[in-house]
Amino acid sequence: MASDSRENMIRATVDLLRERGYEGISLGDVLARSGAPRGSIYHHFPGGKQELVVEALRRYAAGIRRRLTAVAEMGSAVDTVRALVGAMRDGLRASDYAVGCAVAGVVLDLTPAEADLLLPAADALREWHDVISAALVRDGVDRARARRLATVVLAAFEGAIILARAERDTAPFDAVEQELAVLLMH
Amino acid sequence: MASDSRENMIRATVDLLRERGYEGISLGDVLARSGAPRGSIYHHFPGGKQELVVEALRRYAAGIRRRLTAVAEMGSAVDTVRALVGAMRDGLRASDYAVGCAVAGVVLDLTPAEADLLLPAADALREWHDVISAALVRDGVDRARARRLATVVLAAFEGAIILARAERDTAPFDAVEQELAVLLMH
Repeated sequence: MASDSRENMIRATVDLLRERGYEGISLGDVLARSGAPRGSIYHHFPGGKQELVVEALRRYAAGIRRRLTAVAEMGSAVDTVRALVGAMRDGLRASDYAVGCAVAGVVLDLTPAEADLLLPAADALREWHDVISAALVRDGVDRARARRLATVVLAAFEGAIILARAERDTAPFDAVEQELAVLLMH
Repeated sequence: MASDSRENMIRATVDLLRERGYEGISLGDVLARSGAPRGSIYHHFPGGKQELVVEALRRYAAGIRRRLTAVAEMGSAVDTVRALVGAMRDGLRASDYAVGCAVAGVVLDLTPAEADLLLPAADALREWHDVISAALVRDGVDRARARRLATVVLAAFEGAIILARAERDTAPFDAVEQELAVLLMH
């Protein structure tokens, strides 16, 4: 069941990044959380923590991109933003405000020596940005403003997580959802 | 020069939190950065890292609140938002995208056992929120919407830092500044 171990380690890393960021987790934490056998990390991830985190960020980014794309194909840009914000709000509430965004957890923790990890983080943000921006263009927003608005949507989304976790309250998501809908209509 | 040591340790902690978050820094890092003598941490901060970080968050929060208040007293809410966003954009550019927000660096790193540190982080966000919200009320926005808009401003500000550091580009701040001005006028 080698591939199960690999899969479990990736999932555990995603969860730990969402809870504590990059610096707060060790390979020991990943083993404990995933139940994978000691030694299996370097078997599956010869590059160690860094390689595992790159794979976890890719996996996390693809999951959000898929869900955003599914909503964007059926609905408007406002629907897409509601889906993005709503899913994170539900996740925060269900986890007692423990689980945020894996990308933010990496970006804010890195020393210059770890800057290679900025690449998969930036890729994740760009993938999500493209889905939101395309949904806005389909709604009739011109391309330059659609790119700007998609940036604001992602910024407000990432920031709402910080506010909600600090205050242990989902009200920041409600404010962001409501006011982004106003902004996207103007 | 005991009080210089204390001051230098607080400043070094603020800088390190802004660069790497809570989990990425040790008391050794604080000593190295501040040049304070070994042993002086527990002399000035008997509660160790946690006490030092609480003081650093308070200091950081007060600095931003003072600057925001000074702008808000002279100008509009849009001016206040521009000052908030502009100062962070300048700081990121000057530091080669190394230095973000100390509050976010703490909030996204904590395990449940460290949840006491959420209090000074939430206090910081509330102080800034109150200044922005009051500026909006002075501009004629009703109180409930002013609170909502101030939340969106802070969320977009915190999120823009994540996007800008990931992309190593200040464009997210430009988008946020421009579109928040649109939102605050509607």
